[in-house]
Amino acid sequence: MSLPKDYRDQRCSLARSLEVLGERWTLLIIRDALYGGRRFSDFVEHLAIPRSVLANRLETLVEHGVLAKVSPSDRGYSEYEITGKGKQLWPAIRVLMSWGDEHYTDGEPPLSFRHVHDGGQINADGICTVCNEPVALADTLATPGATLKPRSDKPGAITGALLQGHRLLEDVRSSAAPAQSSAKS
Amino acid sequence: MSLPKDYRDQRCSLARSLEVLGERWTLLIIRDALYGGRRFSDFVEHLAIPRSVLANRLETLVEHGVLAKVSPSDRGYSEYEITGKGKQLWPAIRVLMSWGDEHYTDGEPPLSFRHVHDGGQINADGICTVCNEPVALADTLATPGATLKPRSDKPGAITGALLQGHRLLEDVRSSAAPAQSSAKS
Repeated sequence: MSLPKDYRDQRCSLARSLEVLGERWTLLIIRDALYGGRRFSDFVEHLAIPRSVLANRLETLVEHGVLAKVSPSDRGYSEYEITGKGKQLWPAIRVLMSWGDEHYTDGEPPLSFRHVHDGGQINADGICTVCNEPVALADTLATPGATLKPRSDKPGAITGALLQGHRLLEDVRSSAAPAQSSAKS
Repeated sequence: MSLPKDYRDQRCSLARSLEVLGERWTLLIIRDALYGGRRFSDFVEHLAIPRSVLANRLETLVEHGVLAKVSPSDRGYSEYEITGKGKQLWPAIRVLMSWGDEHYTDGEPPLSFRHVHDGGQINADGICTVCNEPVALADTLATPGATLKPRSDKPGAITGALLQGHRLLEDVRSSAAPAQSSAKS
């Protein structure tokens, strides 16, 4: 498998970014951290990838300051927290998701994003279709579509949170109910 | 090397998108097509990748309708044209480039993007910092920074166009001068 340093000759900031983000699974891990996944086990369950691959990707992301490894004093293990540098990637991830929604879901996206204050759908440009304002990441509510289904009878913390609707960035384990469950289009 | 179908279990439109776009070099090829690269030789020169890898990536992109293979009647060979579906990816690429600019260029981006009508710098959100309006892809001017340097004495068509400033989407071979060369910050 070719290594990221293959892009070394490219004098381009896209190539630089992809050296950090372009490895398999990396953007999906960042997506899960933006959703509010924080524990190693959250990512393992949701992504179903080998633990060694996940450990490698998390290490790179911590090294580059996309995630921060924190140790909450009231819990016995480390957690991974998305940083400001990581949050800057949300618009790119949102665009790629919208693109996948439009072209590869037969019109039934597994997840849609809504503005927490008015329930308006957020479009590919990040604009709320109700208030016409750009929506901040923290004001974004992930709401499940009919095609979102758990892989098993016992969904992990991330799947569980998404299935009931979940405000982005909030810890997937602390959210019992969506911030605004009356969201509609 | 793991294949794109590894993401099969992921019920997520980001995973669907990355099945198409996540292979090495693919986003850089799309970037070059957005710049106005059209010929196989343009991509080979600019990316310096093996022809077989490039052929494989181009085939996938044509298959998925991101690029269209066209045969201009006045020329003896095929060209690759970015489609509407491909152009939808520009905001994601722009965000990833801005991210690379901010974190990995020591404040000297090799390239910046300006609004062709007023020369205003385009920010990570795609907004012109002069007129405060969102800038369409076709109204975007790539302007070289001091750190943009050709790899050889005889730069290819894409590098040549970028070095003198180039309006996005315009054929890199037909552009003798930038649409607006008086652009300043």
